Amino acid sequence: MRESDLLSAIATRSANLGARFPHVLTGPGDDCAVVRIGHTDCLLTVDQVIEDRHFKKGTPLDLIARKAIARSMSDIAAMAGTPLFALATGAFPKGFDQARADELSAALKRWAEHWDCPLVGGDLASLPRDADPLTLTVTVIGSAHAARGPVLRCGAKPGDGIYVTGKLGGSFDPSTGLGKHLTFDPRLTEARALADALGANLHAMMDLSDGLGRDATRMADASKVRFDIASDLIPCNAIDWRRAASDGEDYELLFTASGPVPKLDPQTRTTVTRVGTVSAGSGCFIAEGTSSINARDLGWEHT
Amino acid sequence: MRESDLLSAIATRSANLGARFPHVLTGPGDDCAVVRIGHTDCLLTVDQVIEDRHFKKGTPLDLIARKAIARSMSDIAAMAGTPLFALATGAFPKGFDQARADELSAALKRWAEHWDCPLVGGDLASLPRDADPLTLTVTVIGSAHAARGPVLRCGAKPGDGIYVTGKLGGSFDPSTGLGKHLTFDPRLTEARALADALGANLHAMMDLSDGLGRDATRMADASKVRFDIASDLIPCNAIDWRRAASDGEDYELLFTASGPVPKLDPQTRTTVTRVGTVSAGSGCFIAEGTSSINARDLGWEHT
Repeated sequence: MRESDLLSAIATRSANLGARFPHVLTGPGDDCAVVRIGHTDCLLTVDQVIEDRHFKKGTPLDLIARKAIARSMSDIAAMAGTPLFALATGAFPKGFDQARADELSAALKRWAEHWDCPLVGGDLASLPRDADPLTLTVTVIGSAHAARGPVLRCGAKPGDGIYVTGKLGGSFDPSTGLGKHLTFDPRLTEARALADALGANLHAMMDLSDGLGRDATRMADASKVRFDIASDLIPCNAIDWRRAASDGEDYELLFTASGPVPKLDPQTRTTVTRVGTVSAGSGCFIAEGTSSINARDLGWEHT
Repeated sequence: MRESDLLSAIATRSANLGARFPHVLTGPGDDCAVVRIGHTDCLLTVDQVIEDRHFKKGTPLDLIARKAIARSMSDIAAMAGTPLFALATGAFPKGFDQARADELSAALKRWAEHWDCPLVGGDLASLPRDADPLTLTVTVIGSAHAARGPVLRCGAKPGDGIYVTGKLGGSFDPSTGLGKHLTFDPRLTEARALADALGANLHAMMDLSDGLGRDATRMADASKVRFDIASDLIPCNAIDWRRAASDGEDYELLFTASGPVPKLDPQTRTTVTRVGTVSAGSGCFIAEGTSSINARDLGWEHT
């Protein structure tokens, strides 16, 4: 099963949700759903982390809880929103003792509050067997940016610059299973600062979870434009740009904007790097010297 | 691990959440959290269903999806609320094929909409092994009853009558794994009708998931009062009242109210039965002839 195919089938099936439910402003397919509650535009997201998929067995519980919370916070950041409330579930292997369950639930609460978001509820349950994988889910309800509104991934326009925050690649150390994928800082502050500074010139944004190649292709497809990225502009943690554009779980921001964009977030000192340009057309291409690679073929596929 | 102990530890740890986060009106420990978004009091709940815990392997996917959605709807009903938006996650065994994943996700959408609630997002992921248990979670955001506000489980008062909807027990047929636990109707309409009719006289409400004995004890404890229930008044599906008060997964409403209460919901024709009386004191007792059983010892414990 390719998850991207399935998620795209769900998005297609839900395309007309707003016709029957007018308070659904954006349904499945973006980083968050956007819904109206009273006069407030709210962001809704849920994500899951699974043992032996998103973290190795034996990873400290505090880091597992941190990752579970941070992934959903990153979805809120991807829309330039502010987290308001979180809910979490834990499904534990049968042999998991109460002290560890309690440690994990305390860590979920602590990490949610670290990002100024109270954990208001949840559910804990035992899985039937000792060998079953520990699985957490985190739901976050956020508010959209008051002035800019939610920043979707479908707004990129010809002429925009293409930008990323931070450095890409190498989030997961295959020898230890540790790395930035467990300790990243969701770009909540940076995303809000960008929306504050750029306003309506901030056209599209998402967080990088499946690698720049695949995620930039998704943004270009959603926006019905062409992305051209220069390989030598990609800010790399990994050994080379192909790895940097293929590795998943960066949790950096990818965005497009018109007009001038600061090179550094003034609050957090996170770098902002222009990596390419949007034009009319379709697809996402990464140029290396005189050759050009279709970015669709790069990136990280959860299977 | 006893889940009730763990959930109570979490509720205790979160007792002062409202001091730091004033928009949290009710934190962990009730059927839903109650939070304020703009001027709207919203209900938040998440629940999970796990293969070989909440349904038997081989249960039709449509019934699994139905149960996952209906359990969270029942939490909204327990507060007399109205569901607004749902999110779902699915964690599939490795060998689960795309056609089945797609069937399950379509069923989740259809059942959410059955209760007038759009499924606005979610996440799907593969579990690492073929033998891992299919696990679904459903988050629902609801609105509180506009006139009455959310009906908590802690409001029962001496002199109240104690009531249940429908008939109790026998939800799970041990020979087949099938039964009402897969096909129950969450009491959304009944709960709202009760709040409409009784207003401020509707003092406390919850849904019955762990058996009348255990859940009525929780309501008495939360309300700091004593419940006395007459065994011969308990409306039974099961062979005898002990089974009816012990079996889990009724998803009927338990509530207390002062003044007259209708015997039948005029819209749905669901029965409403008075089973006992609230008084000053503590604990929940079920009288059978001249003897009295502590209801704490009955009921269904998820271990």
